[in-house]
Amino acid sequence: MTESRLADLTARVPGLRLLTELTDLIHYGRDWTRRWGPAPLAVALPSDAAEVQAIVRWANERQVALVPSGGRTGLSGGAVAARGELVLSLQRMNRVLGFDATDRLLEVEAGITLHAVHEAAREHGLLYPVDFGARGSCTIGGNVATNAGGIRVVRHGTTREWIAGLTVVAGNGELLELNRGLVKNSSGYDLRQLMIGSEGTLGVVVGAQLKLTDPSPPAQTMLLALPHMDALMEVFGLFRSRLKLQAFEFFTDVALKHVLAHGAQRAIDASEPYYVVAEYDALEDRDEQAALLAFEEGVREGWISDGVIAQNEAQAAALWRLREGITESLAPRKPYKNDIALRISAMPAFLHEMQALLARAYPQMEVVWFGHIGDGNLHINVLPPEDMAQAEFLAHCERVTRLLADALQRHGGSISAEHGIGLVKRAYLDSTRSAAEIALMRGVRTVFDPHGILNPGKLFE
Amino acid sequence: MTESRLADLTARVPGLRLLTELTDLIHYGRDWTRRWGPAPLAVALPSDAAEVQAIVRWANERQVALVPSGGRTGLSGGAVAARGELVLSLQRMNRVLGFDATDRLLEVEAGITLHAVHEAAREHGLLYPVDFGARGSCTIGGNVATNAGGIRVVRHGTTREWIAGLTVVAGNGELLELNRGLVKNSSGYDLRQLMIGSEGTLGVVVGAQLKLTDPSPPAQTMLLALPHMDALMEVFGLFRSRLKLQAFEFFTDVALKHVLAHGAQRAIDASEPYYVVAEYDALEDRDEQAALLAFEEGVREGWISDGVIAQNEAQAAALWRLREGITESLAPRKPYKNDIALRISAMPAFLHEMQALLARAYPQMEVVWFGHIGDGNLHINVLPPEDMAQAEFLAHCERVTRLLADALQRHGGSISAEHGIGLVKRAYLDSTRSAAEIALMRGVRTVFDPHGILNPGKLFE
Repeated sequence: MTESRLADLTARVPGLRLLTELTDLIHYGRDWTRRWGPAPLAVALPSDAAEVQAIVRWANERQVALVPSGGRTGLSGGAVAARGELVLSLQRMNRVLGFDATDRLLEVEAGITLHAVHEAAREHGLLYPVDFGARGSCTIGGNVATNAGGIRVVRHGTTREWIAGLTVVAGNGELLELNRGLVKNSSGYDLRQLMIGSEGTLGVVVGAQLKLTDPSPPAQTMLLALPHMDALMEVFGLFRSRLKLQAFEFFTDVALKHVLAHGAQRAIDASEPYYVVAEYDALEDRDEQAALLAFEEGVREGWISDGVIAQNEAQAAALWRLREGITESLAPRKPYKNDIALRISAMPAFLHEMQALLARAYPQMEVVWFGHIGDGNLHINVLPPEDMAQAEFLAHCERVTRLLADALQRHGGSISAEHGIGLVKRAYLDSTRSAAEIALMRGVRTVFDPHGILNPGKLFE
Repeated sequence: MTESRLADLTARVPGLRLLTELTDLIHYGRDWTRRWGPAPLAVALPSDAAEVQAIVRWANERQVALVPSGGRTGLSGGAVAARGELVLSLQRMNRVLGFDATDRLLEVEAGITLHAVHEAAREHGLLYPVDFGARGSCTIGGNVATNAGGIRVVRHGTTREWIAGLTVVAGNGELLELNRGLVKNSSGYDLRQLMIGSEGTLGVVVGAQLKLTDPSPPAQTMLLALPHMDALMEVFGLFRSRLKLQAFEFFTDVALKHVLAHGAQRAIDASEPYYVVAEYDALEDRDEQAALLAFEEGVREGWISDGVIAQNEAQAAALWRLREGITESLAPRKPYKNDIALRISAMPAFLHEMQALLARAYPQMEVVWFGHIGDGNLHINVLPPEDMAQAEFLAHCERVTRLLADALQRHGGSISAEHGIGLVKRAYLDSTRSAAEIALMRGVRTVFDPHGILNPGKLFE
């Protein structure tokens, strides 16, 4: 059965690169979640949109489930192939197709890494401003699938803001050129927007037209130590009103401990429960003066106990490593991850409630928090005790996540800020989206993918 | 039949304000297009979302078509009720519901005017940056329906960028709270984005959470006279690279003639075929210096023949009136309007082709152009000769629009940049969207509005 399906695929798409070795199946069958055993049927590595379209048409006829696959750095299981799916990897479709200086558009294939996009933009003296730690491995197609956010959202918004056009093979096999790079286009439903954040369940993104912008002005990076949680919000309010923020990230002392143990350098003497890495425009002396005044005001108010300003790029990189190194430093411990969002105004009340909840729910576990205060986005990583079996740990975390989801629902938040729903959060989708919304989403999915071949089981049960 | 349906509606929604007088039917049955005779069944003026929901449910059961209605300033016939529909006017739902300074969100009912939103934002020391001439009459619900653009898109983007949440009664009668003001939310399809630009065919927008931003820095306004069409693109490139543009609008000598005849003041001596109103940040002396240098360079290159810089707010308003007064000055002549978009880089070749096409197609008619070069958006208004019957004029214009649509298709443009498709452009939708896209759009429509009661005949035939 399996062999006849693959033989049929090979016959239809002559020259298609297809991997079936066990090591390849394992490599391409999982993402960074590591919770599901990879078990794909095979791995297809198409070289162009026509091959992708042929694969999708074959999958419709033969009823084969497909898992669109980019850099597999996802944290929601969206790119896991654990049930005999064909992995459709965009890895070989990684070229820059064009650049237009007048439109300031970079046209790329979906399998290009975020880092390569940054480099290509820089070559043209411009900036693609979406950025986060996985930049070297994650791909634009995957960024589109989850509407990736990251560390510059407070200034530049999420991936959605930077997509001027998408080339997509819909689940029904049709090749779509959505919006084609236009600034203004009020001619019917914006299916480009619908595709962004749809986690590979409506279509396979094969290409994108990315907006570029002017490079950011020179920035200064500051590390702050804060004595308590409420100070986080106060300092954010103070800094936002005085400085042009490019980033405002926070993490806890527990996060700091892990990242220091993983090789980062201590940059501040104070030992406090909360830390902030802030980056802001520093074009002129008066900008630096404004930052100093804001810092001093924070100290006077008792919100800041210590701080350091990077004196050069190397120091700035060292401060950033304290924040950006957290995920990597925790990875060996296989943490359970929550990625939640609230309105910024809802955060203080929610933070207090959540802190009490987590203390009760995880008395013997380490809980590592960090995130993006300016976007209302918190990452909560729970580390398993050394002596607890993974299944027991996961079951316990799932019970707590239900409580967290209930709290989020009360506070009007979201169970996924930027990781997506995938497999990991699908049981909690109903905490963020109403039954009526989910019914409409299922209906839309059926329109795009009538046979349900694209990423089945992801997003919806 | 009619009476029994309305009696049923009144019984179900006690207290619903319902208008049935002929003058009201005429007033609420048409928009600024004036091409279709208004003939609604009646006009409902609900006072809250619950009443809207009850009306939509009644319409589903009784198979009554609804026309969602805001300020009816639309130019595509999207709010025309010419076939016995019930007009569902949001006029009474025009309140500001709340403001949050931390989130910088203004929560409003959909029937509030754009001008009232500007005022409310200003009261809080902030800015809602979407702006255009119809601000005093158009409503936020209508702005969302067409993803309204206007004169600040080059700086601030379209309405889409400023919607943090939408409250919608879907065509199936469900009340949806879409995105609820979150900055980040990767939990399934972004139905808020799908709703924006859907022209009242998927749901009735009853409320919105609008993002506000810092007020724009002080600006300077400049009027330029340009000797030929290619100079438009050159001057745009020059100004964009040197100044922080807030707006870059152009119009022709024919447009100028009409707006002067309509009471605007001549502000420049030169008589040239093209004019530009540019607005740019002027925070400091060096900004004004940069503008002067750019102007001088444009003159040296032969792209600019004359120019004037506003010395105060009254002069700036007078310059702006030359551009913003065009639509009003043409209205008595009932022009045929095209509102097209291209990639900016595609404009020079398209402009030459279009100019030849229009000269051939409209030899005896006045053609008035203006628009937003920085967004790739051209408005083309054709004025009927005094002695031509309207039907003949329209038939002729429709034939030319087909040629224009074909040219747009070749150049990768859109038949509607910001007016929407409505009734006016639905025959040309296939020039901008592929058959596969239109089929998906129809499918999505059926999911949201299974009985096809919302704005039938708009957008699709």
